[in-house]
Amino acid sequence: MAVTLKEVALRAGVSRSAVSRTFTEGASVSAKTRKKVEKAADELGYSPNFLARSLTTRRTKMIGLVSNNFHNPIFLQVFDLFTRGLQERGLRPLLVNLTDETDPEESVKMLRQYSVDGVIVASSTLPSGFSKAFRDAKVPVVHSFGRFSATPDVHIVGIDNQQCGRMAARCLIEKDYKSIGFMGGPENATSTQDRFDGFMEEAGKHPDIEVSYSYADAYSHEAGRKEMLRLLKKDHAEAYFCGDDVLSIGALSAIETAGLSVPDDIGIIGLNDMEMAAWENFNLTTIHQPVSQIISSSIELIVAMLDEPDRYPETRLFPCRIVERGTLKKG
Amino acid sequence: MAVTLKEVALRAGVSRSAVSRTFTEGASVSAKTRKKVEKAADELGYSPNFLARSLTTRRTKMIGLVSNNFHNPIFLQVFDLFTRGLQERGLRPLLVNLTDETDPEESVKMLRQYSVDGVIVASSTLPSGFSKAFRDAKVPVVHSFGRFSATPDVHIVGIDNQQCGRMAARCLIEKDYKSIGFMGGPENATSTQDRFDGFMEEAGKHPDIEVSYSYADAYSHEAGRKEMLRLLKKDHAEAYFCGDDVLSIGALSAIETAGLSVPDDIGIIGLNDMEMAAWENFNLTTIHQPVSQIISSSIELIVAMLDEPDRYPETRLFPCRIVERGTLKKG
Repeated sequence: MAVTLKEVALRAGVSRSAVSRTFTEGASVSAKTRKKVEKAADELGYSPNFLARSLTTRRTKMIGLVSNNFHNPIFLQVFDLFTRGLQERGLRPLLVNLTDETDPEESVKMLRQYSVDGVIVASSTLPSGFSKAFRDAKVPVVHSFGRFSATPDVHIVGIDNQQCGRMAARCLIEKDYKSIGFMGGPENATSTQDRFDGFMEEAGKHPDIEVSYSYADAYSHEAGRKEMLRLLKKDHAEAYFCGDDVLSIGALSAIETAGLSVPDDIGIIGLNDMEMAAWENFNLTTIHQPVSQIISSSIELIVAMLDEPDRYPETRLFPCRIVERGTLKKG
Repeated sequence: MAVTLKEVALRAGVSRSAVSRTFTEGASVSAKTRKKVEKAADELGYSPNFLARSLTTRRTKMIGLVSNNFHNPIFLQVFDLFTRGLQERGLRPLLVNLTDETDPEESVKMLRQYSVDGVIVASSTLPSGFSKAFRDAKVPVVHSFGRFSATPDVHIVGIDNQQCGRMAARCLIEKDYKSIGFMGGPENATSTQDRFDGFMEEAGKHPDIEVSYSYADAYSHEAGRKEMLRLLKKDHAEAYFCGDDVLSIGALSAIETAGLSVPDDIGIIGLNDMEMAAWENFNLTTIHQPVSQIISSSIELIVAMLDEPDRYPETRLFPCRIVERGTLKKG
């Protein structure tokens, strides 16, 4: 049970008001009193900042991270960056797992129960209805890894997925692959759609290049492996742009199972540059998504919204770059 | 800004007390009033349960998950299970990242700021001084993946790491490896020490078997790779028990770099059975740690402590089993 201000005041032998002032930023209190109060608070395990302050400010200092794919290894970086970023600002990182949630209204209810000051939706596959529902419920929201919009409903922080599609196609064509394939994530994800559009647009400029496309069921290892096993049963392309790194790694395992080798028989380029893309086991050529900038910018925006809830929604896109490793032939 | 009870009362045209009773379990309120209050609360986005209730109960319903290695892929499962387990109970999962924290007192301060009702320390490498400091600060604490003790200072939920060491050695010996090695995690981790003791005890029963040991700097891919590269430069063992799966995968990449193959030239057995151990890219033979049971049991214990803070600390160890895949020769 939490210790009360009254108990601290009693122990310190000061007034309740003195305790309150000690823990209020900018309030006046003598050094001597402050010392007594801090000592008593320490001994009792008093938590000065939370309940009392929340009642005054109506803020909980909790920021939720909403996601629906906790099994994609990219989230190891996201969770680490999110928690560090908030901790540095004295905010509390709360996780909201919407893996099995399909109803935006239910999520809104849960967020209200959680009393977060704001949420960062970190997902490219959660329908945009969710972030809109949060906004309509007056929960400040930033959608990280969301889709670019010239007139966004909520703050969007991410990358230009169309541009990434173009980069991938151009890279494969420059390396002299004559038949190239797009093996996307789930077709209903906006990230998949945009990467597809960019890829096709760029490939379309080269009528001599043969282009194919297909989709995996999810951004998961299993889905990437399954889809690549299927592709390898027929005339497959010389190189593939896979929807993300985890799909790429699934594809690599399928290629190995089929007795083919990378990059000699088939080329792979991914997207994300998650930590394990650099593991020598994979040595995956991929498009680097600046996750660190995306998360810190998302935190910055959500913090700004706490003071200015009606802030006009903006879109922030960060540039990506290709990281060449070992899964494409030399250009 | 959170909506107040007063605002809900105004909108619903009822007394503040009626609003309060509507949201207090077991309190009496007419169906008609309840309906009006719930409608007003919904429209305003009122969060009934948190601030007010926290003041009455002195509880925040937040449970912290404390860790210091967010980059080990086993945490994808831990985070998923932890958030789902708490959400089902109406509790709030908060993350506490102690990656760079070395001072237990600082961590206690942070936890107080966070006002969690309790914490699960999910780490085998965080010194036990941390969980003791939390306990001394009267924060209910459960140490998951902690060390067995007949007289535990705090609740411990985990596995019998000595037994795992014995299992690994016995498995390698039964498969007729004549020289076996222990490539542990950091030497100061209790999990490493216990796995080492069990491994050596079992190996010691077989005087014909050659035994060696060494330690990686961290439970990380890079550390596993580095240590295995070092081992391969001299007379290496025929098979290794690596401290965990991520070390094993690092070791696999080193073996590949050295131009050797698994399991023909060298055998590897890991520990954890994290999701990606089953990826066909690795197909890692490993000891399954029942993470799901460990997390749900940890949650159960922390919830029990909320009602019974002076509950006598207990140790719960769950049995492990070997999962045979492709990184050891057939026995």
